[in-house]
Formats: sequence, structure tokens, C-alpha cells
Amino acid sequence: MINRTKIGELSKHIGEEVSIAGWVDVRRDHGKLIFIDLRDASGKVQMVVLPNHAEASALAQKLRAEWVIRVTGMVNARPEKMVKADQLNGELEVEVKEIEILAEAKELPFDKDGELNLDTYLDYLPLTLRTKRTSDIFKVQATILEAYRESLRKQGFIEFESPALVGGDAEGGSAVFSVDYYYDQKAFLATSPQFYKQIMVGAFERPFTIAKVFRAEKSATTRHISEITQMDFEMGFIENHLDPMAVLEQAIKDSVNAVADKHAEVFKEFNTEKPLLPEKFPILTLLEAQEILEKEFGTKAIGEPDMEPEHERQICEWAKKEKGSDFVFITHFPTSKRAFYTYADPTNPKLSLSFDLIFRGLEINSGSQRIHNYDELVEKIKSRGMNPEKFKFYLQTFKYGMPPHGGSSTGLERFTARMLELSNIKEATSFPRDMNRIDNLLND
Amino acid sequence: MINRTKIGELSKHIGEEVSIAGWVDVRRDHGKLIFIDLRDASGKVQMVVLPNHAEASALAQKLRAEWVIRVTGMVNARPEKMVKADQLNGELEVEVKEIEILAEAKELPFDKDGELNLDTYLDYLPLTLRTKRTSDIFKVQATILEAYRESLRKQGFIEFESPALVGGDAEGGSAVFSVDYYYDQKAFLATSPQFYKQIMVGAFERPFTIAKVFRAEKSATTRHISEITQMDFEMGFIENHLDPMAVLEQAIKDSVNAVADKHAEVFKEFNTEKPLLPEKFPILTLLEAQEILEKEFGTKAIGEPDMEPEHERQICEWAKKEKGSDFVFITHFPTSKRAFYTYADPTNPKLSLSFDLIFRGLEINSGSQRIHNYDELVEKIKSRGMNPEKFKFYLQTFKYGMPPHGGSSTGLERFTARMLELSNIKEATSFPRDMNRIDNLLND
Repeated sequence: MINRTKIGELSKHIGEEVSIAGWVDVRRDHGKLIFIDLRDASGKVQMVVLPNHAEASALAQKLRAEWVIRVTGMVNARPEKMVKADQLNGELEVEVKEIEILAEAKELPFDKDGELNLDTYLDYLPLTLRTKRTSDIFKVQATILEAYRESLRKQGFIEFESPALVGGDAEGGSAVFSVDYYYDQKAFLATSPQFYKQIMVGAFERPFTIAKVFRAEKSATTRHISEITQMDFEMGFIENHLDPMAVLEQAIKDSVNAVADKHAEVFKEFNTEKPLLPEKFPILTLLEAQEILEKEFGTKAIGEPDMEPEHERQICEWAKKEKGSDFVFITHFPTSKRAFYTYADPTNPKLSLSFDLIFRGLEINSGSQRIHNYDELVEKIKSRGMNPEKFKFYLQTFKYGMPPHGGSSTGLERFTARMLELSNIKEATSFPRDMNRIDNLLND
Repeated sequence: MINRTKIGELSKHIGEEVSIAGWVDVRRDHGKLIFIDLRDASGKVQMVVLPNHAEASALAQKLRAEWVIRVTGMVNARPEKMVKADQLNGELEVEVKEIEILAEAKELPFDKDGELNLDTYLDYLPLTLRTKRTSDIFKVQATILEAYRESLRKQGFIEFESPALVGGDAEGGSAVFSVDYYYDQKAFLATSPQFYKQIMVGAFERPFTIAKVFRAEKSATTRHISEITQMDFEMGFIENHLDPMAVLEQAIKDSVNAVADKHAEVFKEFNTEKPLLPEKFPILTLLEAQEILEKEFGTKAIGEPDMEPEHERQICEWAKKEKGSDFVFITHFPTSKRAFYTYADPTNPKLSLSFDLIFRGLEINSGSQRIHNYDELVEKIKSRGMNPEKFKFYLQTFKYGMPPHGGSSTGLERFTARMLELSNIKEATSFPRDMNRIDNLLND
């Protein structure tokens, strides 16, 4: 490795000579003094080049934003009145002795830290994701991924890799991308790891997967992307839908707490706070939620089969005020409106043992108990006008004995976006794809 | 949850009444006694149904393989001479008092634990992955995934999600699947997360990703699948290719040790041993390796641009015998034969600072230092007959300043397969796709 001290650790080296390396964030010339802010992944530091170091001074005059350099210099304490106590390295400054240029950069198209419209921001991601804001978003996302996995492992789950390429547009209806497979055959991109995690119950009882899913929905909203990362689990030998809900609640709490522990400053940076976690997440049936909407907000929704975006915002407002929770479970959606494998409530089969988890006004998770009886599942497929023959591989799971089971699916990007109250899910997606964009805007 | 004791924990409950639940593995009738082996994810136990429990006895006679049941019974110690000391629960037996049927199963097409040809095994995966052998393979794989991630995190790496949908068949040549995107536009499935992990160096310096990649290669070998899980990392501010090699070596060692720690019995089960890990993996240039092949095996390969499968086996045989290592690095492949972004050796530009890691006769990883100079990279793209305009998004990374960097890419399925000496990579893939199969065999 290039021998260097991390910029985030300079405060341990005051009075010492160090080597550091990184990107030039900004250069400011003050008469004969040149100030350079240098940035690596651990933070930023102000450096000063004095005219008595002639060679370094000459090189420093060439430097522009995003040049990559290695510097040898003295870590000096700043005079008392120059200290910026609230800032990393605010108590020190590096006096540059030598500069080595590792890579030059062409002139930047704009100031990467300025206000950018979303399309420009995304068109220039290789540059714009170097901002602290963007790298913080994805550091938080990495922490969520790690904490969610760790929580599930502690709860007895085992990870597996669910496939992205699938053989059929099995569920029908949902917008699916087709792929040119071998020899003029068509394959499809998975819209969910659902079937595969159910199959894996037979091997692990409690499988989980972090899987890419693909939705060819023609919607360009702040809530939709075409390639999504889903955190899915499934579990056998359950009593009812409350079992996966309890597992999910624990995983969500562990993820929120991990973000708060590892990134204490991040909520303030994004003008929000750590999400409120009550002792138990409130649980409302869809009907109960609709009654609250009518009573508290005058919203007429009783009898509707799902929650509108505005309803999700209102019920979260209620949950925060009345229950001290940024999360609320909604259960018992109409059986006819959920996926065919959803288990009906034995006491009222028109409603299902299904749930959504809403977080700060947005549905981030959905789950249910599933039908485990083979004959019943075959009948259900037929009653939806689909052909059981197309589900042959999947149906073996039930044909050869399957315990009562259920699970849920959390959208990583939605979870991240609401954690930091980002206004658009694309900001929480490292390389977002939608109907108009793959990396760059597509041409019509 | 259904109230039950895990079958793997029954030895703590000898002399107690317990409830257990699982799949019927096998039923054996001995006169009026019925023996049932019950299986859950934690293990198996032998149960006995005595005729004096009339109701249980009647139900037991209906049971067949893969029925899912819940049982209440007494955990009895076996008489001394019936103890099977080398077997889980070999010292006990459950005397059944009550049986509850959770799910029936149709008649099985074959004995799932018998010898099956690979196509039958794969056609019936929802059944066949319930064997101990298969679930052990994927438990080992889950441990590799976890240990590899943990090792990279300890080495300062941060995970990100690399996209599967990409806009162009940028690198050309390699067989790529095309996708019907919106409005008659074509998209493609990623053949590597290479460009995205290089881009992420700007945000994290040390990004890693576990990414699905897709190869439309028309080869039906024991080493190829169409959807692959790659464990990729990239790191900035390196000296040369030896830096990513050192990171990789640590991650590989940590993964092997984690498997050995968590699955002590698994190597014996698969007729192999824990892979040999020397103090340092041997490193040979391609030429040095070829010289050894000629000297030790009489294999004429000097001057060839890559290793043949047979050469990979031979060099591993040598490394095991001479260096006590199941791993060997091969470096300095011809620059012209590696990807365009590969960094040439400054002392001999015809060779590149590239490497492969070979494990028990199979290449499981490949990596290199990369070109970080923008103008040089653009020239390289042109010299390969490709159009830099098609790499516009990616090229911003270098246009706006990129440090010396490198990384590597490990195939999860290949790594798993060699860890357990499986003869076909498909056995180490939970749901393998190839030119003839997506779940079931495809029809021509």
C-alpha cells in the first residue's frame, strides 16, 4: 500500500511529520500562501503550502479540484483562535513539505458540492458520489445490510443466493422484463425471490436472501425504481402471521440501532432524528387504520382494499403522536388483493393473514402467512385464472410436504430513504435504473 | 411460533416430555411397533410409536415420507447396547404420545437420499435440497459469504449494491444477455461489477460487493453456469497488484477457517480435508508456472497466454507437494490477453500486473492493478477497437481524478465447489442456470 496516515486520524499525530494521500477538495490562494483541503475516505484536512518550500509551492499552483496527490508534511496545532472545534481536524493544519501528483483531473463540469438537479446529479455519479452527503447515504445503507443480516442470523436464519433469471412470468400481471436466453428462448428477470425462499424452507427452515428484483413498471415516481434490492426471509413452523412480524420487527430495530450507533452524526446532517422505536410496533388491521383515518383526519377510506400514499402518511402521523412510533404494521388486507399464495384468515377468509410495515409514511415491507397445503394452493392458482402446470417446479415444495410458514420482504432502498428522510428513493440507490435511465438518461 | 424443541437439542431433555416438529424421513414397521425418523433443520431423531397409544398408533400408520408432523412424546435414554455413539441423538429415542399432522405429502418420485443423476436431482430440487448433503453445501456457502464479508470489513472495506441491469455491452466479446427494456430499448445483464466498483473507489476508497453476473456462454461444462455470484472488491492508493492479492489472501484464509470452525464435520462428510493454508500463498509468474509444468510434469506450455484446466490441476499438485498449499497465485499474464483496464508492468509492458488465484485445480479468482490515468485508458479503449463514447459514464471516474487502484473477483460457487471437492459447480449453486436449464430442463 502507499504509505500514508488516514486523514481521519491526524489528530493523533500533532507535532509529527506524516504522509497523507487523497483528492484535492478545493484550493484557495491567499497571496503567497496556498491553502488546500485534501479529502480521503476518512475525512478532510486543511493544508497550507508556504512559499519557502519552493518545489511544493510550484506544484501546488497547478493543483485543481479532484487531482489525486500524496503529501508529506508537518501536522501543526492551530493557534487557539483559529480552532474550529465542531469540525474534523479543526484543531490542526498540515504544513506541506512535498507533493507527489498521483493523478490529474480534467476541469470539473460544476461544483460537486453545489445544489444539483437530480438528473445532473445522476448523470455525473462517478463524480457526485464523492460528496460527503452521498458517501454517508451509502455507508448508512451498508450498515443496514450488515445489521439486518446479523439480526436474522441471530434469529436462526441462514443466507442463500436467490436467482435473478427465472423461467416464466409465473405470477402474471406484474410488469416483468424479458431476456433473450439461449436459442431464441425467453427468460425473465425475477420480480421477487418469493418462490425460492419458500423452497429453501425445506433445507434451512429459516432461509433469508438479499436479492435483486426487477419491475418494468412504467412509473416515474419518487418511490419507484426498476432494479430493487430486497431483504427477504421465510420461516417454517409458524403459528400465524404474527411470527414473521416479530422477526421483522427485531431486524428493523437492530438495523435502526446499528445506524444510530455507528453513524451518530448522520441524522443531524440529514435534518432528521433517529427513528422512534417503541417497545412494540403498533399493529392495526386495515379496517382499524381506516377508522382512525376517518376519525382523526376526516379521510374517507373505509372499505378500500389498500392504503393510498396519503393514507400511509396520515397513519404514520397518528402512530408517531399516539404511540411514539415511526413504524406501524397494517394487517388483514383483502385476500383477493394479495398474491395467490397468501393465507386466508380462518375466521374470515375474505381477509388474509398479511401485513405491510409502514415507516415514516412509506410502505417498506410486505409479508404474510402462506398457503402450505398443496391441493389448496393448486385450486387457488386455478381460481386466479392461472395454469398450475407453469408452477410445476415451485409446487413440488408443497406436493412433498410443507409446514405452515410465512415471511416478509423489505425494500433496502426505501428503508434507507426513509431512515434519512430523503425525498427520492433514487438518492438511496447507488446506481438507480428507471424507465428513463440506466446510468445516463436513455434516448427515446 | 409452534411450541417445540429443536431435534438437535433433544439430548438436553432426556427423561422429559417434549414437543418436536419436522418432516417424516422414514417410517419402519416392526410388527406392532412403528419407528419413525423425524427431521428438522437441526437434525434427525428416531421415534417409536407403541401400540398402547392407540390414537397415535393409528395416525402413525398413515404417515409417509415428507409428511410434516408435530409430536408430543417422552425423550428416553436408549439401553446401553442400542446406543449409536457416532450419531446425533444416537443415545436417545422419542416415545410418541400424540401426533398432529401439519401437512401431508404426495407419494415421492424416488428416494431423495439415493444416488440420482444430476438432471433428476436438479429437476426435483424442492425435494432433493432437503437432504443433509445439500443443506450442508449451502450452509457452508452461507458461512463463506459471511466470513468473506466480515474479513473485508475488518480490512476497511464497505459493501455496496452493484447493478445487474446495464446500458451497454461495453466490453464487447464476452457473451452477454440482452433485456427488453422500456419502449423497444435494449438493456443488458452485467457480466461483471467491475466498472461500478471502480466508480465506488471515489466514495469509499475500499468498496466491495456481492453481485450477480450473467454469462451467455454456450458451454455446458462442470465449471460454467449462466448466473454467477461474484465477491468483488476494489481498493484505492495501492502500490501494485500485490496489495489486492494480500487482501484477497486474508479473505480466503478467513473464509476457509470459518468453514472449518463452524462445520468441523463437513470435510469428512465430503471425503476431503480442510484446505491447506500455508503462512503465505505461493506466487508464481505465468512463465515460472509454465517452467515448473515442463520440469515437473513434462507439460509443454511455455509461451502460452493462459493456463489450461489441466495446467491448473498440475500447478496445484505442485503447490500442495512443494509448498503445503491448496492455493497458488499466478501473476503477469500477457497484457493483450487481459481486460483493457489492466495495468501493464512498467518494467515490461507486454506483461500485466494481473493475477489469478487457483484453488485445488480451479481458477476461483482473478484480479489486477488497473489503469488510473484517463488519457491512457481512453487510448487503450481505442487500441482495442472499441468506442470510448460508449464508456462515457465510466470514464468520468478517471477524467475527474482516480488514484492507483486494483481489486479482484472471486466466484462464490467455484470457491464453494472446491472447498468441498464437488465434481460439478452446479452442486454449489442453489438454483443453477445454464444453456439447458432454468429450474427445469428447457425445451429446445
